[in-house]
Amino acid sequence: LEHWTYVCESCGHTESIETEHWRCPVCGGAFGLEGPNRLIPDKIDPSAPGLWRYGHLLPVDTSDAVSLGEGMTALVPGKLAGRTVRFKLDALLPTGSFKDRGAALLAAHLNRIGRRRVIVDSSGNAAAALSGYSAAAGLECAVFAPAATSPGKLVQSRAFGAAVTLVEGTRDDVARAAQDAAANDRSAFYASHNWHPVFVEGVKTWMLEVWEQLGGRQPAMVFVPTGGGSALVGAWRGIQALPGQPARLVASQPAACAPVVSAVERGTSIEPTTPGTTIAEGTKIGSPSRSRQILAAISETQGTARAVSEQEIVDTLRELWGQGLYVEPTAAVGAAACRQMILAGDTLPAGDIVVLLTGSGLKATETIEKLIGDD
Amino acid sequence: LEHWTYVCESCGHTESIETEHWRCPVCGGAFGLEGPNRLIPDKIDPSAPGLWRYGHLLPVDTSDAVSLGEGMTALVPGKLAGRTVRFKLDALLPTGSFKDRGAALLAAHLNRIGRRRVIVDSSGNAAAALSGYSAAAGLECAVFAPAATSPGKLVQSRAFGAAVTLVEGTRDDVARAAQDAAANDRSAFYASHNWHPVFVEGVKTWMLEVWEQLGGRQPAMVFVPTGGGSALVGAWRGIQALPGQPARLVASQPAACAPVVSAVERGTSIEPTTPGTTIAEGTKIGSPSRSRQILAAISETQGTARAVSEQEIVDTLRELWGQGLYVEPTAAVGAAACRQMILAGDTLPAGDIVVLLTGSGLKATETIEKLIGDD
Repeated sequence: LEHWTYVCESCGHTESIETEHWRCPVCGGAFGLEGPNRLIPDKIDPSAPGLWRYGHLLPVDTSDAVSLGEGMTALVPGKLAGRTVRFKLDALLPTGSFKDRGAALLAAHLNRIGRRRVIVDSSGNAAAALSGYSAAAGLECAVFAPAATSPGKLVQSRAFGAAVTLVEGTRDDVARAAQDAAANDRSAFYASHNWHPVFVEGVKTWMLEVWEQLGGRQPAMVFVPTGGGSALVGAWRGIQALPGQPARLVASQPAACAPVVSAVERGTSIEPTTPGTTIAEGTKIGSPSRSRQILAAISETQGTARAVSEQEIVDTLRELWGQGLYVEPTAAVGAAACRQMILAGDTLPAGDIVVLLTGSGLKATETIEKLIGDD
Repeated sequence: LEHWTYVCESCGHTESIETEHWRCPVCGGAFGLEGPNRLIPDKIDPSAPGLWRYGHLLPVDTSDAVSLGEGMTALVPGKLAGRTVRFKLDALLPTGSFKDRGAALLAAHLNRIGRRRVIVDSSGNAAAALSGYSAAAGLECAVFAPAATSPGKLVQSRAFGAAVTLVEGTRDDVARAAQDAAANDRSAFYASHNWHPVFVEGVKTWMLEVWEQLGGRQPAMVFVPTGGGSALVGAWRGIQALPGQPARLVASQPAACAPVVSAVERGTSIEPTTPGTTIAEGTKIGSPSRSRQILAAISETQGTARAVSEQEIVDTLRELWGQGLYVEPTAAVGAAACRQMILAGDTLPAGDIVVLLTGSGLKATETIEKLIGDD
């Protein structure tokens, strides 16, 4: 563990693995982690459950880990607009989204540093994931959610025993309330999926699994729903650990909230945008914290970014459901970008096309019921 | 495949693997399958996805299979009333329940025999599983459900493209409507989880996985929620394939509907009972079709049957959720029986205690919201 260092993506300031800061104390930027991030095939431990097989690449002590069955989700062939692609089924993780990979790592991290109270701001998958892993690890969990959150979305977190606080105001107000609560309590920890680099180091395991599942090769291109960017930056961290030609990452966003796409198209940094209305709620993040890591993930893999319309998301959902893949709207954003390129006749690189499916359709029954209402 | 034979559990009548009957044409009894059901460790194929690693024990041709990521669910340690047990997480299967194991086999079976239309009677997990695998296999699916089914429970099946028909009357009326629809259509197939033996041969893989996950040994005792009995009879079929001392099977039922428990206690055959009110809807089956196989599974493994109260189910749900295991009420019935024995001070056999968790909590948001309403 002493080989890992927190590095601010903005100013380069470093902190040791023992730091208690969740963002750069100098400039406020997001941290990444640098360390022994190089896959050594002989060190993969097939006897360890799920993602823990990659213990040698993780900045936690696996003896601190709890397991709910996270990782080693299936990679299955399927179709988009008639073309064969491979879907990575992270919707089938324990609490129903890819965020379990990050939450599992954070729970192990907290066990090590001895914090007993997990504080998170989220109304959706991150709250469920952190609540679930907190329960498994015997930690308290406090969820701060926007006042407008529908009660049904918080049932899972509440069942896990999380204390839910509803906060009036903007999404930033909610985050600030969580950060303040953590700052005033020495036993607490702001376990943010949007900020904490240990979370991303957990998420990277999805790409390591894909590499193994393809028989030890990287895919040619990878489509990732992108909001706060942890799935995308996680994929990049995985790619960095792998041998061979890097997979090209495609950050996929709803057109109603596409600050990454705008930045890539203009060749600028990511500028905050006000999210419009989209069915893909999990990607409705106008100002992602890890903005430089997101752009680096795209440029260093020779990737790109694509915006998809609401209609494209809905059409893609129907294609996915129609082949037995039950995902929530946000999870279809990567697939929608892939389908858009295929339908547009864009040339896809030779090799495997992989699409990450991030969250379960069982989380969005009401929304899906409305969508299929006319069928 | 020619080594497999349908055998009626009641009169012993046999049919070849090519039969089109879903129940015994002589006496109306439920079929079981007899064949090469003996695990050969060298024939386990770790390169095959999920449960297909056990292809040599399955009465289908694996080249007919479609995959949505079924099988190889985690076996994780956890607690019930303070005692360590192991939970088999079949709630994390692709459509959210253990029934995906049976549905995956039935889809492969249908591909082989060339039927294109799947007919199923269910309002819950079986409908979702058969609809999902029908979609994956490119088959049509028709779901017959009780008129009183809440619309939310059918959203998943409808998203998969199933045509849903609501039927007034009793549960038997619903089954009869489905059977009639299948009988009048030569391209159709009554793919009943309650009757078809191929379904059970898929379900048996959960026990084969447990054996491997325990390092090649059988557990000492296994707790299984029991309604129609496919999870229990599947476990027994798995045990029959395995070397070593058979695991003792405990059929677990809600006290409000416990015809198996009554039969075991009285030493009689299973007599139809009128189900009372229970939160564990999936086990609300007053007259299971595979009644002899259920009793044989218990007696031949020196197992038993336990009834649990509604309060015990709710208390167990809280224990499961409180350790990060998000399951629906029906899924807690096996765990509740185990917890009941522990709290009563009953002697459990030395060795591993395994509890099957059958279905996802994400399927029961409304019910769970009511249960945690007072917290």
